[in-house]
Amino acid sequence: MDDRWIAERMSRIDASGIRKAFEMAKAMKNPINFSIGLPDFDVADPVKEAAYEAIRAGRNQYSVTQGVPELRSKIQEAVDATFHHADRQVMVTSGTAGGLLLAVSAVVDPGDEVIVFDPYFVMYNHQVTLVGGKTVLIDTYPDFRIRAEDVAQAITPKTKAVIVNSPVNPTGVVATAEEMQKLALLCKEKNVLLISDEVYRAFCFDRPFSTPAEWNEDVLVVDAFSKSYGMTGWRLGFAHGPTRLIQEMAKLQQFSFVCAPTPFQHAGVKALDQDLTPHVEAYRRKRDLVVAALSEGYDLPYPEGAFYAFPRAPWGTASEFVAEAIRRELLIIPGNVFSRRDTHFRISYAVGDDTLKRGLEVLRDLARHCERS
Amino acid sequence: MDDRWIAERMSRIDASGIRKAFEMAKAMKNPINFSIGLPDFDVADPVKEAAYEAIRAGRNQYSVTQGVPELRSKIQEAVDATFHHADRQVMVTSGTAGGLLLAVSAVVDPGDEVIVFDPYFVMYNHQVTLVGGKTVLIDTYPDFRIRAEDVAQAITPKTKAVIVNSPVNPTGVVATAEEMQKLALLCKEKNVLLISDEVYRAFCFDRPFSTPAEWNEDVLVVDAFSKSYGMTGWRLGFAHGPTRLIQEMAKLQQFSFVCAPTPFQHAGVKALDQDLTPHVEAYRRKRDLVVAALSEGYDLPYPEGAFYAFPRAPWGTASEFVAEAIRRELLIIPGNVFSRRDTHFRISYAVGDDTLKRGLEVLRDLARHCERS
Repeated sequence: MDDRWIAERMSRIDASGIRKAFEMAKAMKNPINFSIGLPDFDVADPVKEAAYEAIRAGRNQYSVTQGVPELRSKIQEAVDATFHHADRQVMVTSGTAGGLLLAVSAVVDPGDEVIVFDPYFVMYNHQVTLVGGKTVLIDTYPDFRIRAEDVAQAITPKTKAVIVNSPVNPTGVVATAEEMQKLALLCKEKNVLLISDEVYRAFCFDRPFSTPAEWNEDVLVVDAFSKSYGMTGWRLGFAHGPTRLIQEMAKLQQFSFVCAPTPFQHAGVKALDQDLTPHVEAYRRKRDLVVAALSEGYDLPYPEGAFYAFPRAPWGTASEFVAEAIRRELLIIPGNVFSRRDTHFRISYAVGDDTLKRGLEVLRDLARHCERS
Repeated sequence: MDDRWIAERMSRIDASGIRKAFEMAKAMKNPINFSIGLPDFDVADPVKEAAYEAIRAGRNQYSVTQGVPELRSKIQEAVDATFHHADRQVMVTSGTAGGLLLAVSAVVDPGDEVIVFDPYFVMYNHQVTLVGGKTVLIDTYPDFRIRAEDVAQAITPKTKAVIVNSPVNPTGVVATAEEMQKLALLCKEKNVLLISDEVYRAFCFDRPFSTPAEWNEDVLVVDAFSKSYGMTGWRLGFAHGPTRLIQEMAKLQQFSFVCAPTPFQHAGVKALDQDLTPHVEAYRRKRDLVVAALSEGYDLPYPEGAFYAFPRAPWGTASEFVAEAIRRELLIIPGNVFSRRDTHFRISYAVGDDTLKRGLEVLRDLARHCERS
């Protein structure tokens, strides 16, 4: 085939970072895998039963674009009860990735700027690039807190949107109500769309989750069942925001995702009734183990949510440090996959306790060596 | 929210055609629904069992981007056995919609032209518009056959791809081997990517299915389990083509669809073993009923595949004729949803026999009136 067939945009998208890490993992015999960005628990039995039931009953064909009415109305009720906005509509999406892609496609024109906090979830950049937009990064090192005043300085006439994520992948930091409020009000004042990625919302250990939609009724929220309910492979998420925007996203959904997988939409109704407390408590405890183990030898911004920690590499660049960790069978992700900087590394502690302890032991040992061995 | 938030591309995408039809259907009490573009049979029991099994076994998390190895290798083996191409790689997608969107995004730069046959599946236009490309339509009226010489005339230096679909939605016409061969060789000669949408491949009643990939090893094929196995809501499809192109599509999949629903990928392995003959025979018989019923009073290009027929409206524009049909509780889709012309209408005969007979009776009755009543 001819190279000229490949669109120019593809040369601006380098999505190889995490894949490289996974390929390294494949070469490892029995890795201590701290690289996986998904929960270590399975879908709850009653939710599985609801999926079997939907499949058995023949709910296997396309659903309406915005989602099966039972699921959509249940989410809509919860959203209405939380926000009391006059104009906030729900649609069911294929994960947060699906909701984000629809949103970015519906709002970002070529040349438009989208503000993203660094470190960032890699998908944001790639999606913005895909539609011809430009990502403007706001550095949040060393404490990884979001500051509305930094955003205010970054906003230009070309700024179409800001994407905020709390709890943050990869740092585990959770925005305070005050931080979110300032950001929400700034976007309102500046007339910029604020997109809030709330996929880790359930996992807040030390402070309640704050959504910017509390202070700005035009915020677009993207959320998913993936991480909270252990169903990343079910491709089920949802978005809510101003009707006009949701309608444009639904228009795009018709000829892209078409609909989220129908049987899993029905199972999603059941998922919403599940008590997540045991999972949240389990991750809180694992978080505590991570913080305790790395209190000596590591500079670790306190991880308050999700299931990630983002310590600073105690020596070398993050890539150098990670290469050494991998030589010791510990798979972690260097910060430059999520950032312009290469100073920190991501731990996912959504692993079994034995694995967690083994990996933390390797990290403690690595910190004692101030040079590459 | 501010109107300026909506990207300019959205004003160029009017996806309301089919939705309008569905909304009309909602207002009808007991419509004879000939508008549904999906099979009327459910997923086979062994395939459902395989889905339960995958869910029960905890295969509920992300799969690798290109698809679970069991499914991907099974499709790859079948593809290799068919084509013996040195470089033809398979990836699992979220339906043909997913495969097409990845392909169009990976190849079409803003300003590029994509050749599409009219009447067309509406998704083609919308996806090309979404990425900034321009659809160039080739009129195939009145016999709906594809002619390579028409394509040759339409190719310009800006032409990046041709999208061909056989059996055709909405006409039911199946390309002959000779037609496909000419198109395949033309695209090879002109160095243009040929994308073949083969989602209705299983439903060919009178002649064997011909894929252009038989004569051009650079053809990208998009296909799905949706229509063949009655699982449009499972969002499972696949694509195969030159490795370089599949790799670019997989790169995009990482941050859009992520993966096709994992449990359904596992069930897809079982689906491939199902015998589709009974369904194909059932639709052949229904097709014969349609042809017999409309032999008088209708100009009907012979429908050889899929589960669609595309008769010419016997009076008025197609929209006028369809409006009258809807007044009589028969829901059909006017041709202008699929075409620049408004002369024909689409019947989907993937309905129960009673419904089919009732609807055909209404059509026979409507043909007897040469004017709107």
